[in-house]
Amino acid sequence: METFERLESEVRGYCRNWPAVFDRAVGSHVYDETGRPYLDFFAGAGSLNYGHNNPELKAELVRYLTEDRIVHSLDAYSVAKRDFLATFEEVVLKPRGLDYKVQFPGPAGNNAVEAALKLARKYTGRETIVNFTNGFHGMTLGALAVTGNSMKRGGAGVPLGHVATMPFDNYMDGRTPDFLWLRSLLEDSGSGLDKPAAVIVETVQGEGGINVAGAQWLRELSELCREYGILMIVDDIQMGCGRTGDFFSFEEAGIVPDIVTLSKSISGYGLPMALTLFKRELDVWEPGEHNGTFRGFNPAMVTGTEALRRFWTDDAFATATKAKGDLVAARLEEMAAEHTDLGAHVRGRGLARGLAFADASVAKRIAAESFERGLLLETSGPEDEVAKLLPPLTMTEEELTAGLDIMADAARVATKVAQPA
Amino acid sequence: METFERLESEVRGYCRNWPAVFDRAVGSHVYDETGRPYLDFFAGAGSLNYGHNNPELKAELVRYLTEDRIVHSLDAYSVAKRDFLATFEEVVLKPRGLDYKVQFPGPAGNNAVEAALKLARKYTGRETIVNFTNGFHGMTLGALAVTGNSMKRGGAGVPLGHVATMPFDNYMDGRTPDFLWLRSLLEDSGSGLDKPAAVIVETVQGEGGINVAGAQWLRELSELCREYGILMIVDDIQMGCGRTGDFFSFEEAGIVPDIVTLSKSISGYGLPMALTLFKRELDVWEPGEHNGTFRGFNPAMVTGTEALRRFWTDDAFATATKAKGDLVAARLEEMAAEHTDLGAHVRGRGLARGLAFADASVAKRIAAESFERGLLLETSGPEDEVAKLLPPLTMTEEELTAGLDIMADAARVATKVAQPA
Amino acid sequence: METFERLESEVRGYCRNWPAVFDRAVGSHVYDETGRPYLDFFAGAGSLNYGHNNPELKAELVRYLTEDRIVHSLDAYSVAKRDFLATFEEVVLKPRGLDYKVQFPGPAGNNAVEAALKLARKYTGRETIVNFTNGFHGMTLGALAVTGNSMKRGGAGVPLGHVATMPFDNYMDGRTPDFLWLRSLLEDSGSGLDKPAAVIVETVQGEGGINVAGAQWLRELSELCREYGILMIVDDIQMGCGRTGDFFSFEEAGIVPDIVTLSKSISGYGLPMALTLFKRELDVWEPGEHNGTFRGFNPAMVTGTEALRRFWTDDAFATATKAKGDLVAARLEEMAAEHTDLGAHVRGRGLARGLAFADASVAKRIAAESFERGLLLETSGPEDEVAKLLPPLTMTEEELTAGLDIMADAARVATKVAQPA
Amino acid sequence: METFERLESEVRGYCRNWPAVFDRAVGSHVYDETGRPYLDFFAGAGSLNYGHNNPELKAELVRYLTEDRIVHSLDAYSVAKRDFLATFEEVVLKPRGLDYKVQFPGPAGNNAVEAALKLARKYTGRETIVNFTNGFHGMTLGALAVTGNSMKRGGAGVPLGHVATMPFDNYMDGRTPDFLWLRSLLEDSGSGLDKPAAVIVETVQGEGGINVAGAQWLRELSELCREYGILMIVDDIQMGCGRTGDFFSFEEAGIVPDIVTLSKSISGYGLPMALTLFKRELDVWEPGEHNGTFRGFNPAMVTGTEALRRFWTDDAFATATKAKGDLVAARLEEMAAEHTDLGAHVRGRGLARGLAFADASVAKRIAAESFERGLLLETSGPEDEVAKLLPPLTMTEEELTAGLDIMADAARVATKVAQPA
Repeated sequence: METFERLESEVRGYCRNWPAVFDRAVGSHVYDETGRPYLDFFAGAGSLNYGHNNPELKAELVRYLTEDRIVHSLDAYSVAKRDFLATFEEVVLKPRGLDYKVQFPGPAGNNAVEAALKLARKYTGRETIVNFTNGFHGMTLGALAVTGNSMKRGGAGVPLGHVATMPFDNYMDGRTPDFLWLRSLLEDSGSGLDKPAAVIVETVQGEGGINVAGAQWLRELSELCREYGILMIVDDIQMGCGRTGDFFSFEEAGIVPDIVTLSKSISGYGLPMALTLFKRELDVWEPGEHNGTFRGFNPAMVTGTEALRRFWTDDAFATATKAKGDLVAARLEEMAAEHTDLGAHVRGRGLARGLAFADASVAKRIAAESFERGLLLETSGPEDEVAKLLPPLTMTEEELTAGLDIMADAARVATKVAQPA
Repeated sequence: METFERLESEVRGYCRNWPAVFDRAVGSHVYDETGRPYLDFFAGAGSLNYGHNNPELKAELVRYLTEDRIVHSLDAYSVAKRDFLATFEEVVLKPRGLDYKVQFPGPAGNNAVEAALKLARKYTGRETIVNFTNGFHGMTLGALAVTGNSMKRGGAGVPLGHVATMPFDNYMDGRTPDFLWLRSLLEDSGSGLDKPAAVIVETVQGEGGINVAGAQWLRELSELCREYGILMIVDDIQMGCGRTGDFFSFEEAGIVPDIVTLSKSISGYGLPMALTLFKRELDVWEPGEHNGTFRGFNPAMVTGTEALRRFWTDDAFATATKAKGDLVAARLEEMAAEHTDLGAHVRGRGLARGLAFADASVAKRIAAESFERGLLLETSGPEDEVAKLLPPLTMTEEELTAGLDIMADAARVATKVAQPA
Repeated sequence: METFERLESEVRGYCRNWPAVFDRAVGSHVYDETGRPYLDFFAGAGSLNYGHNNPELKAELVRYLTEDRIVHSLDAYSVAKRDFLATFEEVVLKPRGLDYKVQFPGPAGNNAVEAALKLARKYTGRETIVNFTNGFHGMTLGALAVTGNSMKRGGAGVPLGHVATMPFDNYMDGRTPDFLWLRSLLEDSGSGLDKPAAVIVETVQGEGGINVAGAQWLRELSELCREYGILMIVDDIQMGCGRTGDFFSFEEAGIVPDIVTLSKSISGYGLPMALTLFKRELDVWEPGEHNGTFRGFNPAMVTGTEALRRFWTDDAFATATKAKGDLVAARLEEMAAEHTDLGAHVRGRGLARGLAFADASVAKRIAAESFERGLLLETSGPEDEVAKLLPPLTMTEEELTAGLDIMADAARVATKVAQPA
Repeated sequence: METFERLESEVRGYCRNWPAVFDRAVGSHVYDETGRPYLDFFAGAGSLNYGHNNPELKAELVRYLTEDRIVHSLDAYSVAKRDFLATFEEVVLKPRGLDYKVQFPGPAGNNAVEAALKLARKYTGRETIVNFTNGFHGMTLGALAVTGNSMKRGGAGVPLGHVATMPFDNYMDGRTPDFLWLRSLLEDSGSGLDKPAAVIVETVQGEGGINVAGAQWLRELSELCREYGILMIVDDIQMGCGRTGDFFSFEEAGIVPDIVTLSKSISGYGLPMALTLFKRELDVWEPGEHNGTFRGFNPAMVTGTEALRRFWTDDAFATATKAKGDLVAARLEEMAAEHTDLGAHVRGRGLARGLAFADASVAKRIAAESFERGLLLETSGPEDEVAKLLPPLTMTEEELTAGLDIMADAARVATKVAQPA
């Protein structure tokens, strides 16, 4: 590890909690260089919904590379891109009645967010974006401006503006009616809220603490946007691609966002890829008005195409995810019941789940104890107060149960020194 | 192509000039789906310095994937990352006496730029960045603010601030002493220039029109930064990794920037990867203060490691590149001599070369005629007035000559309808 | 009037509602050039709390001018300024136990606000200012950023940032606990609220619609600021100098703001003057760091000194104002009772009072009908939905009653064509 | 003085250099409270072009006040305002063929500048303002953004943006062609200069160091603005009202700015007043879109009207000012000749003159020595390196000579300890 300490910037983070040097990975397991296995409840922060090195995706990827198919093509046309687009249309868009145009904005989620914000501002001619407390959208300056975390915001080094923050669902514990504040501001010409171009929202805030927006809340938000001529952007980078069950996390609410961002698991194999989707009439981009070197990374499209074909041609995968989510939720409720004195409570939807504690140090200790026991488990929330579960959607029930057993055990140890709520 | 037109956003660009569907690529050639070969003078905008699908890099990549080594690991430690870091230190840093820390800021060049700007602002506690006319640094909001192109800036939808633009080398045709303006502003407390955190500069502006900063100009800039306590960022995303001969494009000038950005050819295989390098004392990042999902994409590190080992353990590759650059320059001078009435002139360094015309439409037509003849050639400059050559550094002299023959031919046709200068 | 129409900018406003050319003014009356008197319920938007051309102040002013005392002295020392400072200390600060330093920031209220915001930002090293819905603080760019009115904000032509808007007291009709939103944001490091330098608040929002902040709300705000290390700025430009009874409008709440702005009636005679007051420890200004040509306008200090001596050496004036305020309130309640079907209701404190209607056109018509009947009455609120009363504090009860009779009559006519609530 | 030190903010400035308490003022002299006279070479920073307490203006002012004419009328119509407008049209606009609309933007110069910037941005729909090195336009946030002085900019506490700074005439000692830089940026779509709404310029920079823009330079700037559709704002707050001879300082250059700001001496008596003038077609303001409490301060209009009538109905006053300017210049040249070793040189136009030294401490000492000898003389320039002369335009030749004698004497003492250039 001395190599890392000597050469890699202090900005590195995960390695501090997981002091291992990882080498191999298959399905639900990661192996360090000594061969020690770790069950993965993290899945690359939601980038590995189909597990590590899925053999069918790998076969397509290796074949593509081996046959000297084109790897890097910017936004020139390629066979791999055409396959991806056609498959995405057939498997994802058409069955859901979505008439979206597809933009390849660059390889990272933040590229998808930056493109979404630019387009919303260009289309409306307005500047303000409404974001929500504890939202997380990326580290580039445009995406960071709509991100809540104060430490990360502080890293900008310049003021982050053109944003108005609103309370996420349940932010104020039901002590104020939903959207009362936003609606008041929009209706009142003296409110000081410059009319927004768009809202940007996650249906479940992963980094923010596994905070779930209810379906009704999302519908009201969608309706409010329609009413006031504001675009609705759903950032589905972490919660899309089946994390909550359905392909898009907003399907359950029955809404159709104006703009959707996807990344993380869209390639299905951990390859960098991102998409910005938007309603056809919003496609007011000039050619080349937004560009980027790695926006045509064909291997990611190849695995992405294969993932769509393998997992999304019928409902089975979504149904299984929801069932696994219920299983996880039930076990987490049991754990919470053991620690009611610590204000433990369960959050989440589908296979994005969390166990939160009043004492912000507990989740950190659960993660540390889990690592000791061979389980990769992250924390989230502004104070890292939530033990976060993002297992591969392909994880078996046996693996899930094994991991939850470890976690329950870790929680018992971790809570021993905690402050009562 | 109907699939693209129906589904892909109007933002797509290169496909409009190159109406082909690419499928395979080997070395210096790309093949469309009908099997037609194209000689590639573009190299993925400088991302494919070692050609397409270099067989030795491919072998390492396929082996890594086949052996189920870890693909996606965020900023956890991995064997592949350790190999990359150690090799980068051994092959790149040590021989050049550079004591840089390495940050993996995300997969794209803009991530490297955003991280560089953030760090410069954080370290200095200042906000203004000095950039240069016709600079290009990326499309995310922070990077776009230091980019000159007005069409791309207009896409931001919000004002782009905290920047002071200075004339690049030779911008005013030698009619004003270098740095007279910048120095005047810095020395004068009444100038209105808020003290800058950093300058960001390309040694050769690729997108800006193959504008070359002379070694003396770069040294003066470096000296001026030192004198006033301003950090110097060299954006070597396009010109680094050997494009101008040496690994870093600034080596020729004998300077040591405070911060360096790399991307494009750093993985050597067109895989998304980016680095931000900075002097050890600048490493004031908090853990996790800048993050991103694809900042630990191991396959790119694997090919990047192999590329360093294959091409950079001695001077041979750099020497060959410079020689090829001279060959290209000589041929371009011949072409320019044919079209002196059109103000044709040659620009560039190493294997980043351009042929500029007074009439901005000429280069566009050369590119179109070249494509007809099976040569991929791009334009650059604010009005696309420069035919730009970025061939793979591994291109043979025969291939170079063949391509230059095509280009010369294309230029003769393209200039027929041009306006005299 | 043709002269005005030909030469004066379309930005002129009041003249459109009051199509008269005013010439003379004494006490509570203004006279147009034909000699027609108008009873003044407007008092220069609160700049003439002691009536027009108060004879005692006039005597001092004319004597000062006649004796060739210095008129314009920037921030050099002058006898008139010393008299003002000493009197302000003796009459205003000491009896209230306030240890404020006094800044003369320029002649206008916006200068006082700009200085307050600058100082708060400098002292704290932070940038964000919390303002409140429907706040009004002036038209210069810093003051406009904390002002709510959308039409006026639109005039900026650039984005107005570094501000976070919170609900003023009662803004959401009691449907959410006071400060729940602000406190949630401050306590949550993931909220996206960059830590504020200060809040800026009016105790009664004049332009915003005679919205009253309750004493308890102000105390909670003051406490919350103290708790989080945020400065509290009370903008007392319109409500200070006795408009609500006490000299400062915040006295009733028993709070001590960190910074206070005064202007409008501080000279007592309609002469341009403004003050920024702040706690002694906040005086971190560099000499000349904020300046302005008319910050030392001695005649205004002369009348200001005399006004303090005449009206503020005991409680009598404040007591009388409150009594008159009660009288006005009682009469307005009667009017409101006549128009309950129109949602009429009374607002205000001291001699800042308003009669609001659900139908925003009613107040405009009341003002127009009042003008016809010889009464100057303005409207306020985001939709001008409030008939606003700001009579001189020196107005007699007979004059008040006469004006209210006119207003009641005007209201009866104005409401005939109104939409029921 | 203890009163000031105890109560007045540390921001006070002039009083530190002139430790006297001023009391009376007549014509060219100011008297402190002990009766000591000071000859005034400062004239309220150009606010007292007709001297202190001009008896004819005073007579009108006192009569107006004594007759109980209206003092404060916001932007309602008043007899005094009509007189002013008609006189301004007759005496100033018509003879110069100017078809300007007149806005009363508030009492201070910064109000005039803020209104000018807002209007230029609104009219063009653009945001960037081009300003010039060492420009000074005021302390409110919009005006401060176009001001050069770094200490004053630092006071903003927030970034000052939407501005691009260009070199003022002669800024780079003739080592670069005029407007080469600005023109290059405007012509180049890759320059990074977002198309400006307007330029704002002083013809002679008073605070900036008595830097004179040549007539030819101003004409070229005017032409360049016309060519690119950019508005030209001349800030004539300090140099207008005859300071350089003609009423407007730009008349000599034969240009017609799109927008002009006036303040300081427009009332003629040191009363706060400001105007924003603009071409008729630019008057796109909405009623009330810019407002302010003291924008209708009638006494200032009364003295302003009288000043126009007394001084501007023929050329005599301008001619006399120019002659006096020549006299001052000649004497300053003599002084400079005594101190060529210190790099002394003369700057200025009309009765705005300066004597600059390479050693920035000299001018400060000249000012201090002058004060000792009964002469009020200020410094200016970014390092206060210029002894600045702004005597009343009504000062007699004898007084001028007496003052210059003092100054020459002071300079001899002050230069004794100076560093050679």
